[in-house]
Amino acid sequence: MKFTCSQSDLNANLSLVSRAVPSRPTYPVLGNVLFVADTQGKRVSLTAFDSRLGIRTSFSAEVSEGGKLTLPAKILNDIVARLPEEEITLASEDEEEENPLAILTSSSGRFQIRGMSATEFPELPKVKKGEGIVLPVSALSDGLKGTLFAASTDETKQVLTGVHLAGSQDSLEFAATDGHRLAVVETLLENTEVGDRASDNFAVTIAARALRELERMLATAQATDCVALYVDESQTIFELGDRRLTSLKLEGAYPAYQQLIPRQFSRTVTVERKRLIGSLERVAVLADQKNNLVKFTIDRDRGQLSLSVESQDLGSAKESMSAEITGDSLEIAFNIKYLMDGLKALPSSDIQMQLNEGNQPVIVTPLGGLKMTYLVMPVQILR
Amino acid sequence: MKFTCSQSDLNANLSLVSRAVPSRPTYPVLGNVLFVADTQGKRVSLTAFDSRLGIRTSFSAEVSEGGKLTLPAKILNDIVARLPEEEITLASEDEEEENPLAILTSSSGRFQIRGMSATEFPELPKVKKGEGIVLPVSALSDGLKGTLFAASTDETKQVLTGVHLAGSQDSLEFAATDGHRLAVVETLLENTEVGDRASDNFAVTIAARALRELERMLATAQATDCVALYVDESQTIFELGDRRLTSLKLEGAYPAYQQLIPRQFSRTVTVERKRLIGSLERVAVLADQKNNLVKFTIDRDRGQLSLSVESQDLGSAKESMSAEITGDSLEIAFNIKYLMDGLKALPSSDIQMQLNEGNQPVIVTPLGGLKMTYLVMPVQILR
Repeated sequence: MKFTCSQSDLNANLSLVSRAVPSRPTYPVLGNVLFVADTQGKRVSLTAFDSRLGIRTSFSAEVSEGGKLTLPAKILNDIVARLPEEEITLASEDEEEENPLAILTSSSGRFQIRGMSATEFPELPKVKKGEGIVLPVSALSDGLKGTLFAASTDETKQVLTGVHLAGSQDSLEFAATDGHRLAVVETLLENTEVGDRASDNFAVTIAARALRELERMLATAQATDCVALYVDESQTIFELGDRRLTSLKLEGAYPAYQQLIPRQFSRTVTVERKRLIGSLERVAVLADQKNNLVKFTIDRDRGQLSLSVESQDLGSAKESMSAEITGDSLEIAFNIKYLMDGLKALPSSDIQMQLNEGNQPVIVTPLGGLKMTYLVMPVQILR
Repeated sequence: MKFTCSQSDLNANLSLVSRAVPSRPTYPVLGNVLFVADTQGKRVSLTAFDSRLGIRTSFSAEVSEGGKLTLPAKILNDIVARLPEEEITLASEDEEEENPLAILTSSSGRFQIRGMSATEFPELPKVKKGEGIVLPVSALSDGLKGTLFAASTDETKQVLTGVHLAGSQDSLEFAATDGHRLAVVETLLENTEVGDRASDNFAVTIAARALRELERMLATAQATDCVALYVDESQTIFELGDRRLTSLKLEGAYPAYQQLIPRQFSRTVTVERKRLIGSLERVAVLADQKNNLVKFTIDRDRGQLSLSVESQDLGSAKESMSAEITGDSLEIAFNIKYLMDGLKALPSSDIQMQLNEGNQPVIVTPLGGLKMTYLVMPVQILR
């Protein structure tokens, strides 16, 4: 293998695939990135794989000798990231051997890096082709941004560590919950090509970790680009141009979350989102570290929402803001973190809370823009 | 106590003094900041003290009621930092009691914070006045920037955890060493008022931790401002306007470091500083984590300096750059970290290394500008 490319191309693509390299690989070769140089296509592809998550990308290069080998991801990444923007040549010797040597040459110097044979590197999972679901980048981005934060980070919670995607002819719905709160985003698919297939109904739960990497990939794409999603019994594969991300499907039935969302409410509170976030951040300083609780006092007569926090040892805080209120006055308490996570993810400048009683679920929605629903359970106030 | 001030004044001054608040105070009151409001001077002073390091600052405010109390540094800081830029009022109740309450009021809300009586708070150390040494901010800044990084971070190394300041009629010298390397900066004091006193010779070793806070204070001062330094048997005090920093003197004789610096050299190497730093950063990726060693090959005939690193497991690296060389060719090895720290602190675009043999100390100096000497010991190359 021998190719010449720009430092920026190699650096950007190495950084991208390196995200799938485990910090403690179960097999040594999984700590490496697979390089495949193709003379005909004049492209070099990079692959990393940690048995659950795989990322493949490619970039154009002057390939003078085809071939393949694997190289240690972290070391190569650290060197390439520190090189100035210039032409870099990467060549390998003895690719057939167990530990081939790669030689990286730049204007300033020469690095010899010990690799491993490409034959050791596992194949990325494949699914039967021709069953792709076409998803617009803008819909995917909106959906991920509005739900990923709500997925559980507790690995024992299985299916809750993922985001549930459900598609129909004209919409794509994202949902994530960790049992304390639920975020749902519905994106409409009008004017896209999702209608290509006869039956477009699908549902799959994909690990949040993989979707965070997908989100990173999408950041460099155009909003009008499309991603192809392939799903089979065990795998999901996303393709964006020549970039591919594979992820093991999360097993198990996803909770019937639509049943949890109340459809009727006796009260609504409309407030400025940033004002509410600012107040929450300040009163949170005095919140008890254990229950992290804030009390909302909804005062219809004064058109005011007040936030208060009491701490036996430290003191107390109270902030108020004007709000549009319908329904009766109410006192209700929340865990600050859960409420805050949702408020930060909502995209609009004003938000609406819809409530029933102080012990029933509350939903928060943006006013205008994205169709997002954030459900949070109140905390019992001790009296 | 009751005063009104801007959020930015209170925030900036709280942040500054909070640096002297210990994270685990030996006495609870040392986790607090002392507030003293003076009706006549229309100023509020803030003091924090951890028994080794003390910081006092003040700012102007509408003081409607004089008084004093102490308030928890971290909580108050966290709240004030999150308030928008606006007028804030801080008032206290029952200052005579053990745990007085302070009430912080802004346009958005009201915070009650439990404090402690000011009578519990220790006095900042004082020294006999009238013995101040006047030091220009620019000289202090240059000296600290060029030496602080070389002080030892090992608390058992006593006097080596500080920077040694030695002043004479017309110069001020800074030195720091951790036993592996030595940084010395000499600043000239022409056109300043240091000559005020009959005998200006002084020498004192001050904790690097305190000097880092002094450096932070200096960042907001004008280069032409002056700092007054007061020294007695146990304390040093820096005064910059109404800001004061007190630090316990470090006990013990500082090493006679001037004796360590060779005065004659058989070789010099002049190179571009950033080019050398770039190469060192790249070859460092392949350096052995234990000895972190780089070999310099000084080739006079080719006018070239080459850096090489070998790692049994990972591979090897070699970078070369042109250099102006006098004296014979030489191979010499360094610990990358020690060399790099000095190169990063040197202020010039070109630097000169002065060497004798491969086992003798090397000094690195900037070409032009500041008078700085960085001494680093080479590492024995095993053959």
